[in-house]
Amino acid sequence: MRDLVEIGMGRTARRSYDLHQVEIVPSRRTRSSKEVSTAWQLDAYRFEIPLVTHPTDAVVSPASAVRIGQLGGLAVLNAEGLWARHADTEGALERVLAAATEDDPVAAVRTLQELHAAPIQPDLLAEALRTVRDAGVTVAARVSPQRARELAPALLAGGVEILFVQGTIISAEHVSPGEPLNLKEFITGIDVPVVAGGVGDYRTAMHLMRTGAAGVIVGYGQSSATTTDSVLGIGVPMATAIVDAAAARRDYLDETGGRYVHVIADGGMDGSGDMAKAIACGADAVMLGEQLADAADSPGGGLYWTSAAAHPSLPRSEVTGFAPSERDLEAVLFGPSTSPYGNVDLFGALRRAMAKTGYSDLKEFQRVGLTVRG
Amino acid sequence: MRDLVEIGMGRTARRSYDLHQVEIVPSRRTRSSKEVSTAWQLDAYRFEIPLVTHPTDAVVSPASAVRIGQLGGLAVLNAEGLWARHADTEGALERVLAAATEDDPVAAVRTLQELHAAPIQPDLLAEALRTVRDAGVTVAARVSPQRARELAPALLAGGVEILFVQGTIISAEHVSPGEPLNLKEFITGIDVPVVAGGVGDYRTAMHLMRTGAAGVIVGYGQSSATTTDSVLGIGVPMATAIVDAAAARRDYLDETGGRYVHVIADGGMDGSGDMAKAIACGADAVMLGEQLADAADSPGGGLYWTSAAAHPSLPRSEVTGFAPSERDLEAVLFGPSTSPYGNVDLFGALRRAMAKTGYSDLKEFQRVGLTVRG
Amino acid sequence: MRDLVEIGMGRTARRSYDLHQVEIVPSRRTRSSKEVSTAWQLDAYRFEIPLVTHPTDAVVSPASAVRIGQLGGLAVLNAEGLWARHADTEGALERVLAAATEDDPVAAVRTLQELHAAPIQPDLLAEALRTVRDAGVTVAARVSPQRARELAPALLAGGVEILFVQGTIISAEHVSPGEPLNLKEFITGIDVPVVAGGVGDYRTAMHLMRTGAAGVIVGYGQSSATTTDSVLGIGVPMATAIVDAAAARRDYLDETGGRYVHVIADGGMDGSGDMAKAIACGADAVMLGEQLADAADSPGGGLYWTSAAAHPSLPRSEVTGFAPSERDLEAVLFGPSTSPYGNVDLFGALRRAMAKTGYSDLKEFQRVGLTVRG
Amino acid sequence: MRDLVEIGMGRTARRSYDLHQVEIVPSRRTRSSKEVSTAWQLDAYRFEIPLVTHPTDAVVSPASAVRIGQLGGLAVLNAEGLWARHADTEGALERVLAAATEDDPVAAVRTLQELHAAPIQPDLLAEALRTVRDAGVTVAARVSPQRARELAPALLAGGVEILFVQGTIISAEHVSPGEPLNLKEFITGIDVPVVAGGVGDYRTAMHLMRTGAAGVIVGYGQSSATTTDSVLGIGVPMATAIVDAAAARRDYLDETGGRYVHVIADGGMDGSGDMAKAIACGADAVMLGEQLADAADSPGGGLYWTSAAAHPSLPRSEVTGFAPSERDLEAVLFGPSTSPYGNVDLFGALRRAMAKTGYSDLKEFQRVGLTVRG
Repeated sequence: MRDLVEIGMGRTARRSYDLHQVEIVPSRRTRSSKEVSTAWQLDAYRFEIPLVTHPTDAVVSPASAVRIGQLGGLAVLNAEGLWARHADTEGALERVLAAATEDDPVAAVRTLQELHAAPIQPDLLAEALRTVRDAGVTVAARVSPQRARELAPALLAGGVEILFVQGTIISAEHVSPGEPLNLKEFITGIDVPVVAGGVGDYRTAMHLMRTGAAGVIVGYGQSSATTTDSVLGIGVPMATAIVDAAAARRDYLDETGGRYVHVIADGGMDGSGDMAKAIACGADAVMLGEQLADAADSPGGGLYWTSAAAHPSLPRSEVTGFAPSERDLEAVLFGPSTSPYGNVDLFGALRRAMAKTGYSDLKEFQRVGLTVRG
Repeated sequence: MRDLVEIGMGRTARRSYDLHQVEIVPSRRTRSSKEVSTAWQLDAYRFEIPLVTHPTDAVVSPASAVRIGQLGGLAVLNAEGLWARHADTEGALERVLAAATEDDPVAAVRTLQELHAAPIQPDLLAEALRTVRDAGVTVAARVSPQRARELAPALLAGGVEILFVQGTIISAEHVSPGEPLNLKEFITGIDVPVVAGGVGDYRTAMHLMRTGAAGVIVGYGQSSATTTDSVLGIGVPMATAIVDAAAARRDYLDETGGRYVHVIADGGMDGSGDMAKAIACGADAVMLGEQLADAADSPGGGLYWTSAAAHPSLPRSEVTGFAPSERDLEAVLFGPSTSPYGNVDLFGALRRAMAKTGYSDLKEFQRVGLTVRG
Repeated sequence: MRDLVEIGMGRTARRSYDLHQVEIVPSRRTRSSKEVSTAWQLDAYRFEIPLVTHPTDAVVSPASAVRIGQLGGLAVLNAEGLWARHADTEGALERVLAAATEDDPVAAVRTLQELHAAPIQPDLLAEALRTVRDAGVTVAARVSPQRARELAPALLAGGVEILFVQGTIISAEHVSPGEPLNLKEFITGIDVPVVAGGVGDYRTAMHLMRTGAAGVIVGYGQSSATTTDSVLGIGVPMATAIVDAAAARRDYLDETGGRYVHVIADGGMDGSGDMAKAIACGADAVMLGEQLADAADSPGGGLYWTSAAAHPSLPRSEVTGFAPSERDLEAVLFGPSTSPYGNVDLFGALRRAMAKTGYSDLKEFQRVGLTVRG
Repeated sequence: MRDLVEIGMGRTARRSYDLHQVEIVPSRRTRSSKEVSTAWQLDAYRFEIPLVTHPTDAVVSPASAVRIGQLGGLAVLNAEGLWARHADTEGALERVLAAATEDDPVAAVRTLQELHAAPIQPDLLAEALRTVRDAGVTVAARVSPQRARELAPALLAGGVEILFVQGTIISAEHVSPGEPLNLKEFITGIDVPVVAGGVGDYRTAMHLMRTGAAGVIVGYGQSSATTTDSVLGIGVPMATAIVDAAAARRDYLDETGGRYVHVIADGGMDGSGDMAKAIACGADAVMLGEQLADAADSPGGGLYWTSAAAHPSLPRSEVTGFAPSERDLEAVLFGPSTSPYGNVDLFGALRRAMAKTGYSDLKEFQRVGLTVRG
């Protein structure tokens, strides 16, 4: 049954699948969409929709984080982004926007690189988090493994409630000449739940679960802007990666006699159809970025990029432009929609996909039948 | 032999195929196309061609229904469409046409949503059906499962002879807080044959057959306008779905000792070549929509959409535009053709495909050899 | 090993492959291209290159037939084409050319239909053949199965030396209300070798071989102009079809204790690379059409179509336009080339493909290693 | 496990894979990119990066060869190119550049053909090599098998240190009416290490290794300019071909009790991601051409072609144009990059791909996990 191919003599590889190669198969019963719950819970925090934002300045500002929290999702502020480096973040974002309109397709990337050369200012970071906390929604922020130890105190001081330790690809065992992050020690020594990733395979997912992480991120935010595969040759076909991480979750649950680590799918999704497929493959929640970029109240003004766009020497994300729309985050998440393209009413669509296949909650929906296009 | 792949660890899925991945293989004999019959019979109704229309206002008006009936096919009026809601249907269609010419690609969808906010008027519905009945052709109409019980009396009063209970994806077992349709009871309690669907798998097809349906619709009208897959993640690769439904037909025939339930393929077909493939996979008839939209006597004036375009909060069909042609429905169905693209003389082409592979009727042609492109 | 897939429950199909999915694998030795022979022999006729023309007026006129014969190939005149119907063939071709420049993409098809409504004049046919015969090259013509008996006398009188009985898809057993062609009787009763086709599978190829045909045509001239698959749903992936026909040739050779029936590949080839692949799959010769259309001395003036374009009610070929080039047939076949696109020096390229894989004649080259793209 | 398909009856073929179908799977640990070495050694020559240039005049001039050597790579001058034929090479290159701007897409090919009609002048060749030698970097040149014996003396006199005997596809056993090159004797009789290729399969790779070659080239420089597949039908899916050649290397190492022959991947790579995949499949080094063409200090002025473009009668490469950039070779190889497209900082990207999968040298990285896209 294991789906192996021989690339060449003596070298086998698994076949792996993207979400767009997979289809949900209705095959049991149908259900009214009013009878469906999309709620999930991460540690002590309950959310009405399984939405976590990709930690990019293009979609997460303190203001949009508040709005997303009020709408039932979890916004993750990038603790190494513009909000942490520039008091005049609006001015910084305007510079990106201005550069993106020029003929040079990499001018906006260059601008992001320049803006990220400014140092991180812990007080700016704390202030940003405080805005979110004061609005009464769950406070989450992302740090890279390299800077986790350095930035954790400021984040805790600022009131972070869930910490994301997230890089393109991370591992539980980082070899470094300096003082690498021992993720297990880090997580043990910190008071808030930690979500870690991205990963692309069963083994790393299992290792991260064993560090005590509350959640594991699968994927690295693959979007129409992301170019990691072209630059590094590392690709994560998401249907397979999510199914594998869900297998790790199940095995780890058994190994620990009951510790459930959440799997969050980050990337490889276009619109609501792919979000439903990600849950169907076994994700507990989906990390969205690009999907929120054209909302009128997203900070990027219609642009999208991931934090890899700002890498000082090897950027791995374009800045892609969207015509900013008039609809706001609420409409993007809950409609009503006048667009038939899967980009509006994202969670109404998820609810309806679950209803049409007869499932009433997310955990059950992870068992829906799937087919692979021939 | 079962064509399974492992998407990821512990999760298998069947491979499934679209019609365009399949080819008909001539391999026995050839036959004059004059020796070929394309007739089929649904309950007591015989049709010269295996054509059922997709129930969309873009191609079915009372007038075009009459014409299609006279030409040997079966037109299905959408009982929840514009004809049931607006006395001035022409005016309503003109509003859609006007919106479709604007720059905003979703303006026509919005217009359809607005037009469908008007209530259904049973007398308009009855009048539309009467026009068809008075012309002496078979009268068919479509209702959604949600409104079947409510609208059935008006439809019967209007003279409906075959009733289609059709939603994107339906099931024999709908879970709902209100009073869901028990399809079996509904069919038992009604005097006319009922065709139900769409379905995408063997099990649901079998369940629908057991409700007493005279026919089962496979697919949900996938066309160049349809976006259900992008919105909901639910896709129905049609070659596999039709073969599966035909297997259900065979098993149900055996189970009941002789009750033959017709399989109607709805979607995933571009032109006449795909229609032939749908029959070759086991369909008894094909449901066409888009293929008829550019006929001069189609009501949509060259536009096409499915009823899902008018969903109040989550539309799942675009309004696609075709340059209206000068040829009429008769030419589209029977030629002669000056177009080599499979869009004219649809049933002449089917007849010829059967002839070139040596078959003389549709039932035999369901056994023709198929190959799958590598 | 048999490459079967389950399309759906209870219905299996072979996977089949196009030439573009196959690659020739060099793996033994290399050879100077001067050491390579591309000669082949059909019945008593020897040709320096394995070229047979597709019988379309776009590339075969009496004059171009003579030229192709002088260059070592075999041109097949369409006995049901314009040369057989119009004394002023040049004027007819000019009408097609004029129609092809208009905005209406099917205007040229319509013109061909009109021109083919004129009756076949046996004396025109005989005169055309005589021109070819008088030049001292092998005379070949094509008739459809439907008109073979009717036109054979005129063709024999005109001096035809090899007769092609060719339709899109033919069989040895044609069921018809009139008086169908019994191909075996026809071939037995005629004095010249007969080549018959097209076929797409082993069984029909074998049946045609048993009629006494000297050669069997595989495929139906699939080109960028052909639309048979869209219209009829009948497709012939050529790598598989040629391999299958070659298997029939081998089995028939065994069955008869030595009768070798030639396999001619007609379609699915873009340029010289695909021609080499067709031979590598087992073809004895390739039928070319489109590849010759832009030669300055081709009659179509840069246009291409197959005879199916002229079908009175169901055309299955476009008229595609090429910018006519300045190179003549000799340059197209033998170069020298300044074009790196596989469209010039077609047989120099074949010779070089054989040399680079170490083979010295066509029959050996049919055993070269192949790989299928993953 | 062997991945065989049946193309048709009685004819099987392996499935083979391109680099773009393969993904590197991170699955062990991560590592700081500072902890990674990209050095390799060919015979006595050590290079800091596994870069060998494709021997085309578009990227290798004496000046760029020096620069590439100083940057840690190995440049291979084409001993049968313009530098060997024209004293005024700059003028010759300008003619190509001028022709490439015209409307005729093959004008530049024709110009290259004309320029290559001039005879090779051994003194020009020697002078070019001397320039490279005098700069203190490793001197390498390429000859075709046909002219290896004739040109070797001039190359040795000019100070060549590594000799590349390279044609599109070569073999250890060339059948020819004249005096073919016996590669084994040639290599035995010459004092410098010889690298030979291209090959596409295990057997030929093994045969070349047995001639005493120090390295074997896999592929024939497939690039966006190359058209060998269209012209000859010979394709080399690179992931499979590299894995196969690496298997030959392993088997030959065992057979000889320790002779390690280097595998150099030439073609099928777009940017740095594909380069990493080539190493991951088993290559010891990558041969780059197109990737260097837009550097400000590349001689082609933004154009790219392979030497097959200049073939006198059957060219198999286009001249493709790139807008020349302002970045130089150093930036292309080592960044820093403002481009997220995998075309800048090629070897920084390779280093990072190794780091993210936890490997510290190239030899280890050949064992990284791979997956094949479904």
